[in-house]
Amino acid sequence: MAVLLQAGDIFDFTIDVEEGVVGGASIDAHGTPLTDEVLALAKSSDAVVLGAMGGPKWDGLDYSIRPERALLALRQELGLFANLRPVKLFAPLAQASTLKPEVVAGTDLLVVRELTGGIYFGQPKGVTTEPDGTERGFNTLVYTTPEIERIARVAFDAARRRRGRVTSVDKANVLESTELWRRVVTRVRDEEGYGDVELDHVLVDNCAMQLIRDPRQFDVIVTTNMFGDILSDEAAMLTGSIGMLPSASLGGKVGMYEPVHGSAPDITGQDKANPLATILTVALMLRHSFDQGAAADCIEQAVERVLEAGPPHPGHLRGEGQRGGVQGDGFPVGAT
Amino acid sequence: MAVLLQAGDIFDFTIDVEEGVVGGASIDAHGTPLTDEVLALAKSSDAVVLGAMGGPKWDGLDYSIRPERALLALRQELGLFANLRPVKLFAPLAQASTLKPEVVAGTDLLVVRELTGGIYFGQPKGVTTEPDGTERGFNTLVYTTPEIERIARVAFDAARRRRGRVTSVDKANVLESTELWRRVVTRVRDEEGYGDVELDHVLVDNCAMQLIRDPRQFDVIVTTNMFGDILSDEAAMLTGSIGMLPSASLGGKVGMYEPVHGSAPDITGQDKANPLATILTVALMLRHSFDQGAAADCIEQAVERVLEAGPPHPGHLRGEGQRGGVQGDGFPVGAT
Ligand SMILES: CC(C)[C@H](C(=O)O)[C@@H](O)C(=O)O
Ligand SMILES: CC(C)[C@H](C(=O)O)[C@@H](O)C(=O)O
Repeated sequence: MAVLLQAGDIFDFTIDVEEGVVGGASIDAHGTPLTDEVLALAKSSDAVVLGAMGGPKWDGLDYSIRPERALLALRQELGLFANLRPVKLFAPLAQASTLKPEVVAGTDLLVVRELTGGIYFGQPKGVTTEPDGTERGFNTLVYTTPEIERIARVAFDAARRRRGRVTSVDKANVLESTELWRRVVTRVRDEEGYGDVELDHVLVDNCAMQLIRDPRQFDVIVTTNMFGDILSDEAAMLTGSIGMLPSASLGGKVGMYEPVHGSAPDITGQDKANPLATILTVALMLRHSFDQGAAADCIEQAVERVLEAGPPHPGHLRGEGQRGGVQGDGFPVGAT
Repeated sequence: MAVLLQAGDIFDFTIDVEEGVVGGASIDAHGTPLTDEVLALAKSSDAVVLGAMGGPKWDGLDYSIRPERALLALRQELGLFANLRPVKLFAPLAQASTLKPEVVAGTDLLVVRELTGGIYFGQPKGVTTEPDGTERGFNTLVYTTPEIERIARVAFDAARRRRGRVTSVDKANVLESTELWRRVVTRVRDEEGYGDVELDHVLVDNCAMQLIRDPRQFDVIVTTNMFGDILSDEAAMLTGSIGMLPSASLGGKVGMYEPVHGSAPDITGQDKANPLATILTVALMLRHSFDQGAAADCIEQAVERVLEAGPPHPGHLRGEGQRGGVQGDGFPVGAT
């Protein structure tokens, strides 16, 4: 909030901010991870900044009412089909990576993850019990041509603003749904005037290897919801600092912005949480939702300068609070 | 073959070996990646050693008749539900890793991947076209209690022969099928006398991070077919040498053994392919299918000694031939 206000002062804009609780904090206050009021607030805003949500306190709850349900519901209700996760190594933090500096130095890639389709939301799903007591759990991975087309366009457009290369990741040699994915991504490139963008296709298992072998080979990676979940976290960890990475979820009227990390409940109250990912998240919001590119640049440069002056406690940068998944309670900032 | 014969001489056993072609070589010879004859040969053997299969030559074919179909069919026909992928850093190769030596040194984990279920084989699947031309691709992720129970037992048994820890990997916070997975794995531990084995559960995205952050925290990782595909390749690459890693697929009457790497068609005919993973695969076969543990130990020690004397060309160790997936043509060795 301090950074947002300061940026507004310097660049002469005002953003009205309202706060609402979601996730763990909402469960405690209202018995549900996302209230209708907060959802309405989010929908009526221009942008939402989302804090990390969840933590050991709510781990015993049924999955259907856990903190992360709020996140999934917000993504779907706001139509945020495109999740952009830039993974950039800040030079002063090269040492924080568990990879050799000469391998990660200069890493600058963008994961474009499909966010409202695929196996996260596909129907049918559930667990059934057969007469003999055998349980059967199932989920459906499904993609349609329009869903693939629109995320492919986001990736190609992003590549044009970067180094002009898209790597589409699938498991086309096994999964028919991703065979369709590969075919449609190729068609969008060839038939919608993206001939200037270079496109290649990599299998997900190979991509998981290549990210470690040579992360600099990638510019834009576009992939499904599930593969994007895995690969973007893997890619984030290459930088040694998932406490540094912002993300943007776009596609609807309202954009949603989140740090990639969890809420690190293991360091609650110790006054050493690293706010840089959230600050960079605000920069992303200013750029994508409010057309304040200069303010965004300024914030990002300020972060770089802070890091050059000496990195924060390395424990924070490594995302040590992450084990066990999403943690802590969160709040959205509706900005209208 | 030379190593197998030599080991038989020293340890006084004979293994009858028959060869058959699968994958690319079979497509060329018979128009199909797996003939009934070769399948029957595999079924009538005690063990199968499978070479890497596939390559650019067959990339244009429809996925339904590509080389890798042979692999999937063999796994299913032979009932090989448990894929064991040991990931061990050979000390002399620590430098080949892109991770810092102090992070990877001592890495010794085992990925136990479910191999005949999950989204690889779940029905329904396919691509349909709606009247307006929209295509819809879908696959089904499905697991039943017996499928989860048996792979959990394999993991717990393996952990007992190692350091006594199992990490089960799922996406229980999103996928109902893996919520069932988590519940059943826990029940097998608690109710089937595996109380001496330590069990924890990690989300797949977090696991992808933790493998890079600190691979030594893992002993046995047990997971679904799809997650196992991704995570085992990621884990393999940590060692910097996927050209070094063998794997065993067990569960039926016949065991199948494969190197993890592809067939690296980019170095065909250059006489510099690294045979060590295949040699280690033979060791695994001797141990698991022929109860020749002493011969297996001997082969593994011989490999270590070769590496101490000076590693092979680093290019091979890095699995450079992997990009684009499984490659080259392969052959199984039926051993009766
Ligand atoms: C909390 C969880 C539902 C979520 C996801 O899987 O999408 C998280 O891992 C993420 O990547 O934002
Ligand atoms: C070739 C392909 C079908 C196979 C798989 O996905 O199982 C391979 O990647 C592997 O891991 O053995």
